[in-house]
Order: sequence, then C-alpha cells, then structure tokens
Amino acid sequence: MKGQPEDIPWNTERIAGLIEELGAIGADPQGGVSRQAFSEEDLEARERIQQIMRNELGLRVRIDPWGNIIGRREGFLKDAPVIMTGSHLDTVRNGGKFDGAAGVVGAAELVRALNEMGIRTRHPLEMVVFAAEEPNDFGISTMGSRGMAGKLKRQDLEGRTNPKGEELLWALERAGGDPQRLHEGVRLPGEILAFIEIHIEQMPYLERAGKDIGVVKGVTGIRRLRLTVQGEAGHGGTTPMDQRRDALVAAASLIGKIDALARRERGRAVATVGHLSVYPNRVNIIPSEAALELELRSFHLPSLQRMERGLETAISDAEAKRSVRISKEETYRTEPAMFSPAVRKSLLRACRRCGFSSMELVSMAGHDAYHLSAITEAGMIFVPSRSGASHCPQEWTSPQQILKGIRVLFEALLHLDQRLEVMK
Amino acid sequence: MKGQPEDIPWNTERIAGLIEELGAIGADPQGGVSRQAFSEEDLEARERIQQIMRNELGLRVRIDPWGNIIGRREGFLKDAPVIMTGSHLDTVRNGGKFDGAAGVVGAAELVRALNEMGIRTRHPLEMVVFAAEEPNDFGISTMGSRGMAGKLKRQDLEGRTNPKGEELLWALERAGGDPQRLHEGVRLPGEILAFIEIHIEQMPYLERAGKDIGVVKGVTGIRRLRLTVQGEAGHGGTTPMDQRRDALVAAASLIGKIDALARRERGRAVATVGHLSVYPNRVNIIPSEAALELELRSFHLPSLQRMERGLETAISDAEAKRSVRISKEETYRTEPAMFSPAVRKSLLRACRRCGFSSMELVSMAGHDAYHLSAITEAGMIFVPSRSGASHCPQEWTSPQQILKGIRVLFEALLHLDQRLEVMK
Repeated sequence: MKGQPEDIPWNTERIAGLIEELGAIGADPQGGVSRQAFSEEDLEARERIQQIMRNELGLRVRIDPWGNIIGRREGFLKDAPVIMTGSHLDTVRNGGKFDGAAGVVGAAELVRALNEMGIRTRHPLEMVVFAAEEPNDFGISTMGSRGMAGKLKRQDLEGRTNPKGEELLWALERAGGDPQRLHEGVRLPGEILAFIEIHIEQMPYLERAGKDIGVVKGVTGIRRLRLTVQGEAGHGGTTPMDQRRDALVAAASLIGKIDALARRERGRAVATVGHLSVYPNRVNIIPSEAALELELRSFHLPSLQRMERGLETAISDAEAKRSVRISKEETYRTEPAMFSPAVRKSLLRACRRCGFSSMELVSMAGHDAYHLSAITEAGMIFVPSRSGASHCPQEWTSPQQILKGIRVLFEALLHLDQRLEVMK
Repeated sequence: MKGQPEDIPWNTERIAGLIEELGAIGADPQGGVSRQAFSEEDLEARERIQQIMRNELGLRVRIDPWGNIIGRREGFLKDAPVIMTGSHLDTVRNGGKFDGAAGVVGAAELVRALNEMGIRTRHPLEMVVFAAEEPNDFGISTMGSRGMAGKLKRQDLEGRTNPKGEELLWALERAGGDPQRLHEGVRLPGEILAFIEIHIEQMPYLERAGKDIGVVKGVTGIRRLRLTVQGEAGHGGTTPMDQRRDALVAAASLIGKIDALARRERGRAVATVGHLSVYPNRVNIIPSEAALELELRSFHLPSLQRMERGLETAISDAEAKRSVRISKEETYRTEPAMFSPAVRKSLLRACRRCGFSSMELVSMAGHDAYHLSAITEAGMIFVPSRSGASHCPQEWTSPQQILKGIRVLFEALLHLDQRLEVMK
C-alpha cells in the first residue's frame, strides 16, 4: 500500500453531493424517496450510477443477467478472484435517502480514493449495485444477490407480475438483465475473495452507545408466515356471543400473542404482523375469514425456535377457544448466519487503525451481504442511523459518519486484498 | 269478523311458491340471494311484487317519495288511520330467501285471505314494501321506514353514491321515489293506527325452545363506532420491540376486549368488530394505522352503558400501553325501544286463540318496525329461523312456520282494527 487513509483527500462534500443527487431521483413531494425496483425512478438511478462508474470512476461496467450493475477495476493478479463492495439503489415506497445508497456511494468513494492515490490492488475490484433488494411490487426481495449466490432459479422469477401487470422477467430485461442466461450470472465459490457492504444501521444502538462503526457479527434468521383463520360469518346483531366463530377475534388474539412472544425474548427477537385482511369486512357481519402475514426474526436460533413453538401453541389455543380453523404457510425462511470471522477481524482492526470507536452487533434486517456470505467471505459495516429511523423519509446519517465507514472499508478491503487467499 | 282463521283456506303451497319466486330474483350461483337495495335485481323484485299487489291482490298501488311500495285496501271508515303490515325485499349480498321476504309474503297472504273471506276492515289496510332496509352500497339502511317515520332529511341522502358512482337520489328516483317531495312521504302520528311486521327470528331461540311464534318485546339499542388507531411505521426487523408504536397490536387488544365486554353481559349483549383496515399493510412494516368499525348492541340500557364505559377504558389502556393515539367517532346510534303494549297483548292473545306456542323475546337486529314505532302502535311477529341462520344462504323457515305467523298477524290485525282507537 502506498498511503495511509489519513493521507487521502477524503471529501465529505462529494459524499453528501452524491447522496443528494441520487435521493433526488424518485423524491416524494412529502420528503421521502420512492424508487421501487425496476420502476422508472429506479431505472433512472441505475442509468446515472452507470455513467458515474464509467465516466468518473473509470470502471468497466456491465450488467449481469440478474440485473446487477458491476463495475470492474483490474488488479495485478490475472484471473484472480475479485474483492467486491457495493449495495443497492432501489428503495421501498416512501423510503429514505440512505438505505442502500450509503453503500453505493461508499463503494464509489472507495474507487475514487484508489484512483486518486494510484493504488492498484492485487485482486480485481468489483463495485456492485444489486438489483431489487427491497420488498417490491413483484414480491421478490434481494433478487440480485440471491441470483448471484445461486439461490434463485428462473422459475422463482417466472409468472411474477406487479399490480400494473408488468412481468418481472420483462422488467429485468428492460433494466439490462438477461432472463435467458440467468445461470451465467451465478458466481461460484472461489470467484469472489471477499465482499464488504456499508449500510446504515437502521437501529438506534450505535447512536445510543455513541459508537462510530458497527461491525456486523451476523444477520438475523427470518420466518415469514401466512396464517389464514377460517371462522363463520353471521349477523352481528342476532348471533349470540356463545355461538360465534369470529375469525377476527381469533386473529386478534394471535396478534397479541405474537407480539408477546417476541417481548419475552428480551431484546433478542422481534415479531411483526404487518398484513391483515378481513372478509367480508362489513361493520355488522361477523368476519368469516382473516388472513395475516407475520415475521419472526432473531439472530439466536433458540429464540426463533421458542417463538415458533409459542406460535403453534397460540394457534391451537385460538382454534380451541374460538372454534375456528387456522392454516399456516411458511412463505420465507432464512437461518441466522454469522459473517466471515476473517472479515470481521479485519474490520475491527481497521476501526482501531483509524481511531474509530466500534461495537459488534447483529443485523435484524436481511441484506445482500447475507446472501453473498453463501459464496464468499462476507461482512458488513454499519454506520449510525439517527434515532434508528429506517424505510421512512426520516432516515439520516451524516456525510462524516458515512466517511468513517468508507475509511474502514478502504482499510479492511486493502488488508484482505493482501492477506486473504481464496479457500476453495 | 265473518270467520275464524281455521275456516280460511290457507295455502302453504302458495306461500312457498312466492318465497321461491322472489328468491329466484338475484339468486346466486352458490345458493344465496343478492338483491341489494336499488340494484337491477331489487328493481326486478319490486316490479314483480307491484304486479302481484295490483293484479292478484286488487290493491291500489303507489310508490311513496321514499321509494316504499304501498298497496291500499279501503275500509268502512272514511279518512281513518290505516292499519299496516309488510316488510322489505332488498337483501344483503349473498343473503337468504327469508329475511324481509317472509314479511312481504305474509302481508300478501293476509290480503288474499281477507279477499277470499270477503272481509272488509274498519280501517283502511296498507301493505308496505319498505325501500333499502339492509346495509347496502349507499351506506344507508332502513331508509324507507326512517323516511316514513320522519327520521331522515333530504341532506341524509344527498351526496351518497355507491362504488359504481351512482347517486342514491338518482337510484331512488329510478325506483319510483321522488327526491323532490320527500317531506310528503312522512307519515304523521295518527295517520297509522297500527303496524305489524312478520320477520324471521334470525336467532336460534324459538327453535331451541320449540316455540311457534316469537312476540317481540322490543328492539336492541345499537352503538356503531369507528376507531382509528394512529401509531408509527417502522422496519419490522430493525425496530426493537420496546420502541414500537404498533397500531395493529393496539387494535388487536381492543378487538379482544370488545368481545370480552359483550361476553361479560351474559347473553344480554353482543359486540362485533366487523371491519378492520390496516396501513400500510406490508408484511415487514410495522402498521402505522388501523381503522376499525364496531357495534355494541343490547336491549338493556345498563348493559349498553357498561360496554361503552368498558370501551373507553380499553382505549385509554391501549393508548398508554402501546404509545398510540386512538380517535373515536360514533356513526350510528339507536336506543333500546319497547314495542307497543297494545300490539304485544293482541299478538299474545292471537297466539292463544290459534293454539300456537309462543314466547316473548327481544330483537337484536334493527327493523323497519323499530322506526315505525316512533309514529304508531308497532309490533313484530318472529317465526323460527333454522339454527338461527341469518344473512346467509342457509336461512330457512318452513312454509308451515310462516303460515303460523300469518295466522297470528290476521288475528291480531283484525282485533286491533276493531278495538284500537287512534291516540293523538
């Protein structure tokens, strides 16, 4: 390495400028950002970042079959595995300017620093902008990283349409992906030496602890379930209470118990019922059906398992007490995962060398890095989120805080570039 | 009176035939009847009953400004107040063949019997088919009877549209009503001597007790309320449980408590949350808003008041425990009401004379007769509902059971015609 991070002309104004420039694409009148995957706004942001990667960063840019934008910077070694960093640019509806964008801006700033310092890494470096990370109208999240990690098949994409009737495969092709060659977009273990993603914490713990950097130990496991409560409709006036099979009352008892299950884990788990639909949903008719979608999340497998067992008990209790039938379908499941010990160690070392305070913590959100960890040494850098605000217009991380993340990324990635040998 | 009911050639086949004929108008493929107020199906049924009233029953038929179909049979006395019977022909979506129709068929059969026996009453007799009794797409129920009783103003109808965008005033006019002369459709106290409505019980109590006839003491009071729970959205993974302001969890606790409030009244009250909508209703987003519509019903004012106080407590508790704000709006309110003692006495006498077993009971549903009771001596005859099924395709009352109701109606109405003097 030629220089120390301290010698580099880091530029917080450039960081702030790019955050704002990207945040203006899909800006909501009320202050948030709506740039859902493959929307016009997302396509515009993807176009803009490709211009920057090509013209300002000097990267060789391509779009892989899964729609991931990849900019390559060659290293000394020929045909060597790559070191990789990046995040995503799509947002939820009425989200914020930092979720995803912070990691993309961080990757761009890293490349600029390498360029300005004239550093050539041993391994090739790839900056990546993953496609369709957030929940979206096509009903598929972390699509780009799951595709790259070999976790998706073409069938998982086929037949998906958004409410406008647009097909996901069509939208992917319009964004530059290639639905015919998805298999060619899968990266095999050994092709990527390491992956590090900068991301806003989305929780209030760094801010509360007054720490600069979060080194992510691992990512929560997720159980996503759909419960359908089948009761019986009836006149809301004339049906005596003891003859009711009220699907909504049964669903309400489940909602309360699901919340209590997570609270019982004392900070190690969360549970959310985000969706509920009621039929027939008329004021004077006893609901015959209630469908709810819920999530259980914990990094601690015993907590997850306790909540799953508790949910079973709650379901049986509700069935018995309310004379309803409840069906359960698991729609998404990931296990808790630890990030690469080598990457975590390198990140902690980088924080020390930069003089930044740090703490290890767990990500309660899924991330592209989680899926990359299946095929490479992966890790994540969290920068503080003001008040933990996430997926809302109030998201905020200062350019100075993002810069600290970039400096840790710079330090750790160059360290891994020197030290890490691919383990096949 | 010329004859005793036993001498009359009562015809259960004719009763069954008319029930089936009307039930075929708007019959659902799945077995129910969908004949919502002012729909094409409702208009067809209204047309058919007018033909019958005019051609088969010999009544002078008119449609009053509120859309009520009124068929008149003159009596001996000139300019005397009328005795009246009838019910409604509109249904809820996917309702049954008996709610409303039983009372219309009963009124028609009463007129046929009078005609066949050559009986001329003292007072004029009016058979009425009330407009828009059931909850409907215009959001107004018991419109015809409330209009007739002077409880509605033109403003209550103005601006109402169904989801197709049709205006209620337009629909009323198409059905033969006259939105320009609504005030002329109001009947003053003294114009109607007595009103009796046959209706299916919609509850299982007559069947359980093995009784032929229910003499209705009175009608439940109703409180209809809209509660809006305002919480805060957040990422379902990254927002710790102790930082949540989950609108749906708060709503769920209310739903459970509302159910419990009614159960605590031990058979004297019911409570139903029939409608719930959640925002943004996405699986991994903590709900920021939940809006629920509920009903409290009881014939016992202290029960109603206890439930109202209990709801206030539940709202305060949920606000405190879940850090949400809950607003409350009362959208409909009726007080418990007793039916006319004279009519109830006459109905009980009629049951004895016919040799039918009877019991007095309370109606937990609202009815046209409830509103008529504001301007006349009103009462109701309940006939048994199989299993208490109501507002569903399973509604069933046998023609023999309906005939018993008609015989009681015949006996009581003629008795009142002789004995009752108008009290102004």
